[in-house]
Amino acid sequence: MKACGLIVEYNPFHNGHLHHLEHAKQIADADCLIAIMSGPFLQRGEPAIIDKFHRARAALFAGADIVVELPYPYAVQSSELFAKGALLSLHELGASSICFGSESGDIGHFLTSIAHLQENKSLYDKSIQTYLKEGLAYPEASGKAYEEIGLADMDLVQPNNILGFSYVKTIKKYRLPIEPLTIPRIQNKFHDEEISTTIASATSIRKELENNELTGKARAALPEMSASQLVKYKKIAGLWHRWDHYFPFLQYRVLSMEACELKNIHGVDEGLENRIKRTAAKAVSFADWIDSVKTRRYTQARLQRTFTHILLHSSKEAIASFTGMDTVPYIRLLGLSKTGQAHLNRIKQHVSVPIIANLSRKFAETVALDEKAANVYYSVLPPEARNKLRKQEFRLPIHSR
Amino acid sequence: MKACGLIVEYNPFHNGHLHHLEHAKQIADADCLIAIMSGPFLQRGEPAIIDKFHRARAALFAGADIVVELPYPYAVQSSELFAKGALLSLHELGASSICFGSESGDIGHFLTSIAHLQENKSLYDKSIQTYLKEGLAYPEASGKAYEEIGLADMDLVQPNNILGFSYVKTIKKYRLPIEPLTIPRIQNKFHDEEISTTIASATSIRKELENNELTGKARAALPEMSASQLVKYKKIAGLWHRWDHYFPFLQYRVLSMEACELKNIHGVDEGLENRIKRTAAKAVSFADWIDSVKTRRYTQARLQRTFTHILLHSSKEAIASFTGMDTVPYIRLLGLSKTGQAHLNRIKQHVSVPIIANLSRKFAETVALDEKAANVYYSVLPPEARNKLRKQEFRLPIHSR
Repeated sequence: MKACGLIVEYNPFHNGHLHHLEHAKQIADADCLIAIMSGPFLQRGEPAIIDKFHRARAALFAGADIVVELPYPYAVQSSELFAKGALLSLHELGASSICFGSESGDIGHFLTSIAHLQENKSLYDKSIQTYLKEGLAYPEASGKAYEEIGLADMDLVQPNNILGFSYVKTIKKYRLPIEPLTIPRIQNKFHDEEISTTIASATSIRKELENNELTGKARAALPEMSASQLVKYKKIAGLWHRWDHYFPFLQYRVLSMEACELKNIHGVDEGLENRIKRTAAKAVSFADWIDSVKTRRYTQARLQRTFTHILLHSSKEAIASFTGMDTVPYIRLLGLSKTGQAHLNRIKQHVSVPIIANLSRKFAETVALDEKAANVYYSVLPPEARNKLRKQEFRLPIHSR
Repeated sequence: MKACGLIVEYNPFHNGHLHHLEHAKQIADADCLIAIMSGPFLQRGEPAIIDKFHRARAALFAGADIVVELPYPYAVQSSELFAKGALLSLHELGASSICFGSESGDIGHFLTSIAHLQENKSLYDKSIQTYLKEGLAYPEASGKAYEEIGLADMDLVQPNNILGFSYVKTIKKYRLPIEPLTIPRIQNKFHDEEISTTIASATSIRKELENNELTGKARAALPEMSASQLVKYKKIAGLWHRWDHYFPFLQYRVLSMEACELKNIHGVDEGLENRIKRTAAKAVSFADWIDSVKTRRYTQARLQRTFTHILLHSSKEAIASFTGMDTVPYIRLLGLSKTGQAHLNRIKQHVSVPIIANLSRKFAETVALDEKAANVYYSVLPPEARNKLRKQEFRLPIHSR
């Protein structure tokens, strides 16, 4: 049985994701599709619109066979650590390939670019340091350094190219027996905000959902199963999550913390603690606060991730000890199809880390950071909804078909 | 000019407080009345119903000449530290007497009781330790120990007797040149929940206000100036503060903290951190949470104070270093009458600590804990209201007449 890995967020699961699942299965010639999915908080430092269970359910019914949660310390990170967590998880689960969407769409491009980068590593490292010292944000500095070593045509400022590049680099670095495959992203670009066809970006769909209504446009871009998960979730929770809901908690947190404590939080570097403290009291919204902290050095995503770590009160030490190992500490199963179950039965004796089906006393310490992330995620809901949704953590993984 | 001190919370300012001001002036033969008032959070570990500025204004217009904020690290404490902060502040401000309401109403009672206690100190100390070890809460253990040394008739389980007793003990301990005076509390007892006459307890008035309406019954128990401050405050803030508003923040805080961090918080002793952590996720309201943490050892007030310190993230160290000195670190002026101003001019050269009129960079470090308390207090309000109310901290003290 051949398994192909997909690295996903499904925020929310849309027709493009369905297309991705179908094409991945085809080009990887796979029997089993393993989706490694961010949990409550995402790579760009945002809360997921609905919880991980409802997103996992949509994915399972759309054809994923195993849905695994990418632990929060890996999920809310820039591309390198994000890729590391995802690839090491997929390796544990016996994936022989991964398939990712990219602006490029040509895997040869990624492979030759990485070979070229390896050859010119010292020049690249020197350039990037120079640009960072000039005050550029990391992606911009890295884009310019790529240009200097002649890698301009790869377009490594495109978000999905950056991620894909990190996936392939990670495979090389850890010598993982995983074949990288890519398919071109169709239609709209990542950041496009208006839905034009039935394939639309997650960003444009979330924009449509901002008024708390599942509009016709949004519905057209979503598989039925995903739309119904969105509706179901809102029926219980009363809302679709966004940063605005967390803003009072974040602000309260920062106002009741010392700058020296803030400095211990993962991502709070280079005096950022003072900027964040100084701007805290006057901020009237999350966007307003980000604006007042922003400089050329920090991208929106970088600041959003930092604010997520502050919200979750995650120390540099806790994150570093989690992500510093050469293996993921566990595999947290969210859902399985029959095929997924069969694959898991076949490979589980080779898995070197605990496979965690649900929260239990046994694994309380191990998954403490993910449990905290879930608790904070649900904090913005009324007590009854919160308790109801939180119970999902203690159940067995979702089974489909 | 003779100044008499009053130790108050004014939550809210009612007809009984007016009576207290008038009688204090008379029996102390005072020209100037100094009210030392708890700020955003109160002695029983509760948020004040409206902010300190609106309460100070009501007090000034009712006859107080100087209103000073009792710093939070002294205000949210059991009677001994509460008394220490208040008396040391009043001493700095040149009060030659204090006048407090008590169930007893007889100052002789307090003086002979304290003399008797001093004589039987070792027996008292031994008894109280025995009762505490049996798992009794402090007030109960102390009440029983008083009985054993023959002080039963003083009725030291009555809240205002306990406070008065602490005031007189503090005066003796620090040999303050302050004469203690007491007047009997009239009509309803402290905890009575139904308003029966125009003199009603603050507890019963807050109960009347729970439905966010200034009822006729409540209005009858309040001087016009106090009622109008309540109305004005709600017009800006949209609410009258109570614990329920802070519950989501408190719960979020505890859920995103380790038990070992919780243990550093002032008041979290004897393994209370585990009880609080264990009960956090399931609590559906503040009252529900308190109920699930409560044991015979902890009074409601004790737990509420502890939850306040958790909400404000106040370490044992920060509180101990603030309250461990033999002087208060500063005098924070909230309001003044002309008489108050004259008194202050006369005595200010003898005041050994900074007199702080408003938040300014100069005193930022000094009043950091009070600033944090104010910021957290306003955290439950919409951003605009919060910013508007917070600006009061930067203005000069309120002046009346």
